[in-house]
Amino acid sequence: MEQKPLILVTNDDGYQAKGLRKLAELMKSLGEVVVVSTEEVMSAKGHSVTTVPSMKVRLEEVSAGCRKYVCNGTPVDCVKIGYQWILDRKPDIVVSGINHGTNASTNVIYSGTMAAAIEASMDGIKAVGFSLDSYESDADFDHLDEYIIAITKDVLENGLPDGICLNVNFPKRSEEPIKGIKICRQAKGKWIEVFNGGQSEQGGTCLWQGAEFVYEDEGDDTDFSAMKNNYVSIVPTQFDLTARQYFDEMSRFVHIKNKK
Amino acid sequence: MEQKPLILVTNDDGYQAKGLRKLAELMKSLGEVVVVSTEEVMSAKGHSVTTVPSMKVRLEEVSAGCRKYVCNGTPVDCVKIGYQWILDRKPDIVVSGINHGTNASTNVIYSGTMAAAIEASMDGIKAVGFSLDSYESDADFDHLDEYIIAITKDVLENGLPDGICLNVNFPKRSEEPIKGIKICRQAKGKWIEVFNGGQSEQGGTCLWQGAEFVYEDEGDDTDFSAMKNNYVSIVPTQFDLTARQYFDEMSRFVHIKNKK
Repeated sequence: MEQKPLILVTNDDGYQAKGLRKLAELMKSLGEVVVVSTEEVMSAKGHSVTTVPSMKVRLEEVSAGCRKYVCNGTPVDCVKIGYQWILDRKPDIVVSGINHGTNASTNVIYSGTMAAAIEASMDGIKAVGFSLDSYESDADFDHLDEYIIAITKDVLENGLPDGICLNVNFPKRSEEPIKGIKICRQAKGKWIEVFNGGQSEQGGTCLWQGAEFVYEDEGDDTDFSAMKNNYVSIVPTQFDLTARQYFDEMSRFVHIKNKK
Repeated sequence: MEQKPLILVTNDDGYQAKGLRKLAELMKSLGEVVVVSTEEVMSAKGHSVTTVPSMKVRLEEVSAGCRKYVCNGTPVDCVKIGYQWILDRKPDIVVSGINHGTNASTNVIYSGTMAAAIEASMDGIKAVGFSLDSYESDADFDHLDEYIIAITKDVLENGLPDGICLNVNFPKRSEEPIKGIKICRQAKGKWIEVFNGGQSEQGGTCLWQGAEFVYEDEGDDTDFSAMKNNYVSIVPTQFDLTARQYFDEMSRFVHIKNKK
């Protein structure tokens, strides 16, 4: 009998998040599911890893054949601990999410959910991050079921190019059904923070912070555009940050030391 | 009179690190220097940002016309707070480092030092991260002086392409002088952790962790190869993670939902 695919599920919204429970539930139709998630909410923790000598992991529950572990580290720690310590073999896929909030545009850079998927791809494991354009803790994920299953099934069967994971972003539920899937590029955009000064008890300066995301991209080929037009966006996402297109331009640096 | 360049200096090894002090000192010959660094060592904190409502910033010292601020957040926070709150205008350049330890290969993904440079480039600010292939707290940085000044001066004068910062890695001091600069791609490689289980007082599992970096790249065009051959490596580094070269291959996903 063929071995069932081993599926490692993680996220950055913590082990109690509705999106994580939904994703684990969906994955049960595709293979053996092990959840390794964070004790705390780890949104915006990027590709942070824990380098203190000890981390704690506890088995939270076993239900319907699915083990759920909780770790006091980051999403990237969850992936590392998941396949290097908890599991006795590399998972066939790592799925991360469903994130409460979009990871379209440059949100991918800050996202713990996507960092987990990227970490898996760095270790040669197929990986997909799923995110919904809603920050609500009780968000409705039911319109995503068939997409999440179809995308994961395809990746399990057909693989992904070496060094690539998928950043999948879903539109919030609306009256119209989702129109389909688009392959997109990461939109330009950035967070603009609001800082206000004040005096803290220690005599230092206390900052209160808010932030607003500003899109700076008119393109109709972006993940942001797809999502806003009620499509699922898929961005093939790489961890090689080399901007090869600028090698020629950068060659000026080879000679600078001798210039003066 | 022409305004002197405004130079924001940060790092991820904390405000007391020798590499930060060295970099700030070197920058004084090129412009007005403001240091914003972290209270704690923030190595391997990736692109983490602090989303709690308050952060503390204190003015640590003013010496030789250089202000040094200490922030209880991450390196990315330092950049955001630096130019959005402390400074009254955008800096002309953000320089980050000198990191105690290499950020060649996939180390760039985990690095707080490089995250600070990448964050600046996301905000349209010229940025360079400098790292030395030595983790020693008392590392010798003196063989880097002329390179750091020449590279920073060139970037100030000639700029960088939109969406790009530089990841500059230096070899450890040896008996031979550095041979020159090479423009490189990010080498393939990864951290392999060692986890060992044990029981914690809370009844959970306690993990002790070590890690070893394994290079998986034979190329002589990589940052790792340059550094090991006593060259300075410069990788033009982008935050657009879109793997455009796989758009055609990924188009199979557009049709999956209708397949079955």
